[in-house]
Amino acid sequence: MSDSLVSRVVNQVLLEKSLHDFYAHNETCKGWETNIVTQPNAVKKIVECGADRIAAGLGVGENLPDMELARKIDHTLLKQEATVDEIVKLCNEAAKYQFASVCVNPCHVALCYSMLKDTPVKVCTVIGFPLGATTTQVKRMEAEQAIKNGAQEIDMVINIGWLKSRQYDLVFNDVQQVVLAGKNQRVVTKVILETCLLTDEEKVEACIICKKAGADFVKTSTGFSKGGATAGDIALMKYVVGSSVGVKASGGIRTREDAETMVAHGADRIGASASVKIVLNDASSAGGSY
Amino acid sequence: MSDSLVSRVVNQVLLEKSLHDFYAHNETCKGWETNIVTQPNAVKKIVECGADRIAAGLGVGENLPDMELARKIDHTLLKQEATVDEIVKLCNEAAKYQFASVCVNPCHVALCYSMLKDTPVKVCTVIGFPLGATTTQVKRMEAEQAIKNGAQEIDMVINIGWLKSRQYDLVFNDVQQVVLAGKNQRVVTKVILETCLLTDEEKVEACIICKKAGADFVKTSTGFSKGGATAGDIALMKYVVGSSVGVKASGGIRTREDAETMVAHGADRIGASASVKIVLNDASSAGGSY
Repeated sequence: MSDSLVSRVVNQVLLEKSLHDFYAHNETCKGWETNIVTQPNAVKKIVECGADRIAAGLGVGENLPDMELARKIDHTLLKQEATVDEIVKLCNEAAKYQFASVCVNPCHVALCYSMLKDTPVKVCTVIGFPLGATTTQVKRMEAEQAIKNGAQEIDMVINIGWLKSRQYDLVFNDVQQVVLAGKNQRVVTKVILETCLLTDEEKVEACIICKKAGADFVKTSTGFSKGGATAGDIALMKYVVGSSVGVKASGGIRTREDAETMVAHGADRIGASASVKIVLNDASSAGGSY
Repeated sequence: MSDSLVSRVVNQVLLEKSLHDFYAHNETCKGWETNIVTQPNAVKKIVECGADRIAAGLGVGENLPDMELARKIDHTLLKQEATVDEIVKLCNEAAKYQFASVCVNPCHVALCYSMLKDTPVKVCTVIGFPLGATTTQVKRMEAEQAIKNGAQEIDMVINIGWLKSRQYDLVFNDVQQVVLAGKNQRVVTKVILETCLLTDEEKVEACIICKKAGADFVKTSTGFSKGGATAGDIALMKYVVGSSVGVKASGGIRTREDAETMVAHGADRIGASASVKIVLNDASSAGGSY
């Protein structure tokens, strides 16, 4: 992927008036999903830029059944001091509430797989996490080993320094190698952009690279940096990647309202450690920040 | 290493009156290094617990020459958004001020090695960083690849969840595998404990495990968690590991006074990104938090 191609695509996307309009009203973007379909020129340009389809964000009613929201949630425990007992509790909660997956560090994958292999709950793990700054070769090897240990979903972190240095070929290869490790095994790969560290241009570049490299999802945040998911970023990411790539909102999602806002703006998956509280809509349940 | 042996050692160390006295006066521990040698019973017990020698902390005079302090500093840039240009600048500064090493993420090792191979400045990188929660196999492979790319020092992160779960055999093997990758190549291995997340008992356990596993240094912090080095932790770590294992203070060291305090309490190496400011003793130079 050449430098000039990426620049051209980024300029096209950002110059699109509807996108600028959207950013000017970031906090009041209810109905963004209908804006997309009522602006055919924007849609046409995005399709030309590589999107297979343009998705309308999913709408969520006031009375969403708990299980429907639960199936969009990766029940997450990534703090480095998590004990074996806490990981066991996470798996038990995930099985009880039928979350999409548990999301844990690689050292806990084998344990989670052994606990969840007879349930519909998948084991998700993180690769090159949370800095994304290890080598491509190590990310691929880490992904392959996690899959061997039972991981069915892989959340990798993009190389942010290379992205900011406009080393797009390196970023592309970094994502693609992990995607290939997953694709061989029908494993879902999500790519974390760490949106709080990126400019809007870089978010768009990253989404384009991830889509081209074959990622199944783009994801906002690790939960370990300066900020988490925003509705504006979710809508931007969904807008760029289209419906063939999912969007996962993560970082700072602590209430049902947070989760529903993200889904309303296009999120296909939610990463949260306050998952039980979210599905029970219970302000008293425990839940961390990631 | 059996559970009961570790417990016994920890109890011996923590019950030692001098250590409790020290902790009761954590902020006024000047002279700690002389306390060690004036308390022969404490020394004897620590030697029985595995320390080869008991070191007095290095003292630093008021007029320490800049170069002497510089040679104890790992000039550090680990933020994930560091660009290639920033890494190049880091290497140039390290060569100019003759820091012990540059400390960078693995994706930048080859570049740093190409810039510094004709200087006395070493390339240091981080393994399983900053969570320490990937698998042992991946940590070893990451270390081997970093060494192949030119790293001469390796700062690995201990598995904190396993330590807190009292899975001491797993923690020991995790450290030893990385040490072995380094030992084969005469590479220095430092083990980051992330002291801000540990109890005093866990700090002692971790130091004993690292020493037994053959680590060259124990190090306080990644700079990415809740807190950095404290003088009390440095003194405790030095006390437990003895003089055959170095102690590296890192996280939140922003001024020359910070650095000198750490050295005075036993630190053999300092990790800082404010390194230039520290050696110039210049409050106006830029410097980050890690």
